[in-house]
Amino acid sequence: MALSFTLEAEDQATPARAGRVTTAHGTFQTPAFMPVGTAASVKTLTPDELHAAGGEILLANTYHLSLRPGAETVRELGGLHRFMGWNGPILTDSGGFQVMSLSALRKVDDDGVEFRSHLDGSRHRLTPEDAIQIQDALGTDIAMSLDQLVELPAPPDVVREAVDRTVRWASRGLAERERLRERGLGAMALFGINQGGVDADERRRCFTGLQVLPFDGYALGGLWVGEGRTLGLERVEGDCAMFPKGKPRYLMGVGHPIDVVEAIARGVDMFDCVLPTRNARRGTVFISTGRLVVKNAAYRLDERPLDPACDCYTCTRFSRAYLRHLFSVVAVSLIKHASIHAVHHMLQLVRRAREAVTAGCYDRFRTTFLERYQSGETLAPETVGARGREPEETESR
Amino acid sequence: MALSFTLEAEDQATPARAGRVTTAHGTFQTPAFMPVGTAASVKTLTPDELHAAGGEILLANTYHLSLRPGAETVRELGGLHRFMGWNGPILTDSGGFQVMSLSALRKVDDDGVEFRSHLDGSRHRLTPEDAIQIQDALGTDIAMSLDQLVELPAPPDVVREAVDRTVRWASRGLAERERLRERGLGAMALFGINQGGVDADERRRCFTGLQVLPFDGYALGGLWVGEGRTLGLERVEGDCAMFPKGKPRYLMGVGHPIDVVEAIARGVDMFDCVLPTRNARRGTVFISTGRLVVKNAAYRLDERPLDPACDCYTCTRFSRAYLRHLFSVVAVSLIKHASIHAVHHMLQLVRRAREAVTAGCYDRFRTTFLERYQSGETLAPETVGARGREPEETESR
Repeated sequence: MALSFTLEAEDQATPARAGRVTTAHGTFQTPAFMPVGTAASVKTLTPDELHAAGGEILLANTYHLSLRPGAETVRELGGLHRFMGWNGPILTDSGGFQVMSLSALRKVDDDGVEFRSHLDGSRHRLTPEDAIQIQDALGTDIAMSLDQLVELPAPPDVVREAVDRTVRWASRGLAERERLRERGLGAMALFGINQGGVDADERRRCFTGLQVLPFDGYALGGLWVGEGRTLGLERVEGDCAMFPKGKPRYLMGVGHPIDVVEAIARGVDMFDCVLPTRNARRGTVFISTGRLVVKNAAYRLDERPLDPACDCYTCTRFSRAYLRHLFSVVAVSLIKHASIHAVHHMLQLVRRAREAVTAGCYDRFRTTFLERYQSGETLAPETVGARGREPEETESR
Repeated sequence: MALSFTLEAEDQATPARAGRVTTAHGTFQTPAFMPVGTAASVKTLTPDELHAAGGEILLANTYHLSLRPGAETVRELGGLHRFMGWNGPILTDSGGFQVMSLSALRKVDDDGVEFRSHLDGSRHRLTPEDAIQIQDALGTDIAMSLDQLVELPAPPDVVREAVDRTVRWASRGLAERERLRERGLGAMALFGINQGGVDADERRRCFTGLQVLPFDGYALGGLWVGEGRTLGLERVEGDCAMFPKGKPRYLMGVGHPIDVVEAIARGVDMFDCVLPTRNARRGTVFISTGRLVVKNAAYRLDERPLDPACDCYTCTRFSRAYLRHLFSVVAVSLIKHASIHAVHHMLQLVRRAREAVTAGCYDRFRTTFLERYQSGETLAPETVGARGREPEETESR
């Protein structure tokens, strides 16, 4: 068994659930937030710091790693875990999303995707089989199937074609893992990705194709690409209602605290997102009462921690005044300290969500969280007032 | 007593010594290397990491802190220790060196230095009294007297005038600390700085003026500014021979491992330098067998740590291959990991030097260290061959 999932608790009033996933490199609890170590490093954070923050599983990006240092190089160096010094579970994406969002001259056909590297323009091909082979070379615990993304809005026939291709590619990925297993490789778990954009019928049709395949879990793909929170959450609700209860569900690239809390309420188990850490590196952090802009002049003499309700290393050691000083004067230290908070904050959020599910009161947790998050308490007035004008990073991957 | 110094051991064959300095914020052993937290942060490193690396005392720069966030702001926030979350001893410089090296339109007269900020061109004055007041506001444990630097080579009368002024300013600094003490402030220790450039007679004359003043320690100023290692070490030898045995001796801004080992052999107790950490941020680290250029292609598949003889977090966790990957792809993580090694390496070096002094075999330690450092063992051939061409950072402050 590459992966086992135990459903440990279900909420009373919502589809929220708490579980436990076991992989070759250990166990993680769900709901889980996966810090993103794009190129085998969660920027500025050591494996020990991630562990101390409560991190149990990391995500790494296949596209980036296959360009640099190369999947075979990682394999030669003993695989991703050894390479980056992380002994817990790792999930890798298929590379498809980054091919579509970063690389140039993408050409998709039935066989796969042809593209040019965003680094040096070199020409590459990624087929569903390649995606599995590369992730196997990296030594991942949970691999993702290559899916076809379409840019929305798209005509119905384009969405339809992408769904059909996604299902065919899903099947080819599983077959490739079987071939690897015949050679003693391919030990990793594999998740299928549901597509269909915001079209509920297409998503249902896609899942009809996927559900007969022996995937170890299912991901919700093609969402949070501009459709808006309300519509996105509707599709999350729809997908989760179709997905089997006994397998983990992963909402890819989502990340804003509100989205995470709302998606858990609809039955999602796993999340990843660069938003919290990327924002942090740019000087904006999520705290329990909203979004705090570190450089705000109002914090010049503010001795409170970023988040008075947080017990991370940064919040137990440093004042807003100090961090604001670092933002202006020692940026690389601010990046470090803010990243610690950012990761800790998301991990604490899903841990508390889990506790609420286990206690059967997730709906109350959600209400309390949202009221508090929207209160702006402890935030500088300027920040609250200017919230709409601040350059908030909303891109999720 | 603002500071007490205990001489614990003297080497047999060299003037090397081992001691212990006690300040208001605790004790540090000598020989000591002070990591530099220019603007109240040793870049990317937390206080806990500095502590874990064996750091006992930090240096912070008065010039930078008095411009941003301002000495009074730091005082309002409870002083430098509380501001930056470091509870051990802190030494601050007088600000004079940075005024001369960073700011524009410097004008020196008997009263002090007038200069424009390198940040915004604003006009400032720094007198010997100001330097003491600012350092007191920062809440430092060891303050430095304002001295006058001259750019070398300089005509004898310019050096002579600077020496005279340095002695007068030293006296004024001490008087200012007395005035502060009458108001219940000025608890810090104060070091005098010996000047005279590379002129042995002028340095002797300068110290003649300083030695009658009640300083808590003495610093060697005006060296390592281009005169070369041989001449610099000669002046170190001369100064240390004049300095009283019962007070700590601090060679400012020196930090290449060879310089540190050679200066300890001449009787120096304290060092600070940005060189190891600045080089590390740029991808070059000192290891026990020389200087390692992380990006060297030869390390692509090298699974050894940066320094096989080092037990720092970075060396016990990560391979050269991984760090080389980070250098190209996740620079901010390389900065963090390399900085940990850099600080640890210097602190381990002075700790071992101390052990050798205590064992009475410092001369053998020095010989072994130099042979090993110059061996280039474990370094990639390209690095050894190209050593002279690598852009080594030699500026010390």
